[in-house]
Amino acid sequence: MHTTDIPIEYDILKKNTEIARENRRLLTEYGVTAFNIMGAIGSGKTLLIEKTIERLGSEYRIGAIAGDVVARIDAARFEKHGVPTVGLNTGRECHLDAHLVRHGLTDMPLDLLDILFIENVGNLICPTDYELGEHRRVVVVSVSEGDDIVEKHPLIFSTADLIIVNKVDIAQAVNADADKMVKDARTINPRIGVLKMSLKTGEGFEDWIDFVKKSHEQYRLANH
Amino acid sequence: MHTTDIPIEYDILKKNTEIARENRRLLTEYGVTAFNIMGAIGSGKTLLIEKTIERLGSEYRIGAIAGDVVARIDAARFEKHGVPTVGLNTGRECHLDAHLVRHGLTDMPLDLLDILFIENVGNLICPTDYELGEHRRVVVVSVSEGDDIVEKHPLIFSTADLIIVNKVDIAQAVNADADKMVKDARTINPRIGVLKMSLKTGEGFEDWIDFVKKSHEQYRLANH
Repeated sequence: MHTTDIPIEYDILKKNTEIARENRRLLTEYGVTAFNIMGAIGSGKTLLIEKTIERLGSEYRIGAIAGDVVARIDAARFEKHGVPTVGLNTGRECHLDAHLVRHGLTDMPLDLLDILFIENVGNLICPTDYELGEHRRVVVVSVSEGDDIVEKHPLIFSTADLIIVNKVDIAQAVNADADKMVKDARTINPRIGVLKMSLKTGEGFEDWIDFVKKSHEQYRLANH
Repeated sequence: MHTTDIPIEYDILKKNTEIARENRRLLTEYGVTAFNIMGAIGSGKTLLIEKTIERLGSEYRIGAIAGDVVARIDAARFEKHGVPTVGLNTGRECHLDAHLVRHGLTDMPLDLLDILFIENVGNLICPTDYELGEHRRVVVVSVSEGDDIVEKHPLIFSTADLIIVNKVDIAQAVNADADKMVKDARTINPRIGVLKMSLKTGEGFEDWIDFVKKSHEQYRLANH
């Protein structure tokens, strides 16, 4: 085992955490509950948020921030659902950071929102260390990434509140053991919530909706 | 569009490129042709290398370096095929760098090798800027990542020699247009080689084998 000489930049992370706290304070003041949705490319983050907007859009006022290295393809998908949307381009960076999200929040009508979904840049490594000001950290993984994907990326699961094991309907077809992924996540983080899901068949989706509602209720009650 | 305040570290990149050149010189001296295999999690990088070892292992002397944030799951898969293998852990870094690879090369019997596959860490962002000393840069993408995956990550394709659009056998099932991905890659980089592939059905695999052989032949002839 050999780790690289290039150190993680402590000062950058410290500053990021400070701005993240300011973001969280601002969101909480406005009664907005924010979800940091992390996960690899193709895991189903965008579709999860789209379906959640469809399901809860009449009950809650939802906004979305879409992080991408370039373009605003995901942001355009959210906009189609008629919700306030901000697209954030990270350039060459492989994660959103609190500073970028603060700019995103400036463009958001926070007084008109209950829930904010922040879709992070697609990978399981870089977003780990960068808090954004979210109230809940969610990691979406797909069985098509291989059932060793969780044990290969322990750090991101160690700080997450919820792991969604997505596309369980094709687990057999891609020869993946979803239960192994669940077990790995719980070994890394015994307090993590776990949902096996298929956005195609609907399995697990209502449990997710329940998680979103309860999370929002909890923060709303704590601040009013 | 808004880019982050945190700049990419020019000095680190410059130093990396220097070490990469040394690595390439060393590899070329030993007559070893190196392939930097990049691509997202689950795109099929490991399986591609495994199948290539199976197919070419009797004809060429092959070695493999597997980059991962933690563990050595992929390295163990290569070892099973009886080839010299080094596992490199990047810790929190989302890419291999030339310095790490230099350490990997130290543990490799270069005088006994013709071809070296270097499997990078799984994402389409961070590996872009870090040359390792490779002779060929290959990006593997899967149709299951969505057919907007290429246009979303133009930088990595702009410097690649070959893009492999993998899992084309399930393109219809996941509602992806493989030809759009090909077209996007060619728009970004008109000189890029393109292979549509299915490691399940074998489509495109012999073209890949041909690419590997020709690349090796080209560097062998240039240096003898």
